[in-house]
Amino acid sequence: MPQRVEIVKRIMDSNDRLAQNNQALLDQHQIYGINLMASPGAGKTSFILETIKRLPANIKLGVIEGDTAPVTIDADKIVAAGMPAVQINTGGDCHLDANMIEMALAELPLEELELIIVENVGNLICPASFQLGTHANVLIASVPEGDDKPYKYPNIYRGLDVLIINKIDLTPYIDFRMDYFTQGVEMLNPGLKTFPVSAKTGEGFDAWIYWLTEKVKAK
Amino acid sequence: MPQRVEIVKRIMDSNDRLAQNNQALLDQHQIYGINLMASPGAGKTSFILETIKRLPANIKLGVIEGDTAPVTIDADKIVAAGMPAVQINTGGDCHLDANMIEMALAELPLEELELIIVENVGNLICPASFQLGTHANVLIASVPEGDDKPYKYPNIYRGLDVLIINKIDLTPYIDFRMDYFTQGVEMLNPGLKTFPVSAKTGEGFDAWIYWLTEKVKAK
Repeated sequence: MPQRVEIVKRIMDSNDRLAQNNQALLDQHQIYGINLMASPGAGKTSFILETIKRLPANIKLGVIEGDTAPVTIDADKIVAAGMPAVQINTGGDCHLDANMIEMALAELPLEELELIIVENVGNLICPASFQLGTHANVLIASVPEGDDKPYKYPNIYRGLDVLIINKIDLTPYIDFRMDYFTQGVEMLNPGLKTFPVSAKTGEGFDAWIYWLTEKVKAK
Repeated sequence: MPQRVEIVKRIMDSNDRLAQNNQALLDQHQIYGINLMASPGAGKTSFILETIKRLPANIKLGVIEGDTAPVTIDADKIVAAGMPAVQINTGGDCHLDANMIEMALAELPLEELELIIVENVGNLICPASFQLGTHANVLIASVPEGDDKPYKYPNIYRGLDVLIINKIDLTPYIDFRMDYFTQGVEMLNPGLKTFPVSAKTGEGFDAWIYWLTEKVKAK
């Protein structure tokens, strides 16, 4: 008689399954994980550096740097700021995935960390489709990119937990209609937690650091 | 007796083959074609609008707008400026390909046009790998994106025929080391034709329009 064949109800995507493993590993070490996305030049690394400067001394942060080329410009800056960093070179791929994060996590001193920020590849399209196993999807929009980005890149906005609006120090020099931008965001992701900041002047960072510290404490 | 099997020496990639067809179609109509690439918010549409305003009256331009979502914000602006535009919605894909361009060309009044600009999807990674059949690959870099982009996105810089540096009106407010940027570009693409411009103030457009007009005349 043939053995009964089990029907698996929900076939999980292999990336989602690896992402789930990554999150379990982070939870086991009581680490809060952030997937930080943005288009090229929105200021991801400057934002992380300013965050490092302002974090309470008892929170140790590890950074996973995603790059499409074998350059360590960003990772070098994090290490110079006194935090451990691992670089992933995607070799031209336009996003990180959970498998790459699994390998990177193995290189970080998890027992010493309270927070991990994954700096994703600079791209508003591909990263939206790949969960990494982090606890929050955070996007940095930047004022000089223009106020129409939520309308043009809706998928990435739909999946966000937090939105950072960077480079607000440039607002006087740029035609950026904040109400038009916010309307687009609200349509895609109602009530999205939003922090307008300037990584250059430090404006707006107090609120972000307060929010982040609460999240880390809660792990 | 079996028929002799022809050995095809070089198997062309199907995208490259379609690109070749597109170029033949443009050449047949004496149209100069440009593949305009950039990261999100570098100012592709504003750059095209300023170009339209300054083109000699005898040059008629058609625009193919690549978007990842079904929004016609950019195409509407081109049509409002008096030029025909076709929109391609990639449905989330991170680049245009030659097949999409073939379909878009069928929608444009080729017999009336001297110039076609393809506004690619906002992305510094994926579009670098797909030839469209245009005559020149043009990238818009923008000052607020930062001076390290050639180092981080080398593939797209390697394949360029022309580089536009946009938003130079913002230089006084941003730490952008032009020599560091230029060094990176020179390493990847020696002697690359470069136009620093501001689509906001019109600065630098005379040289670009002169270059473009010469190329169109030569078709």
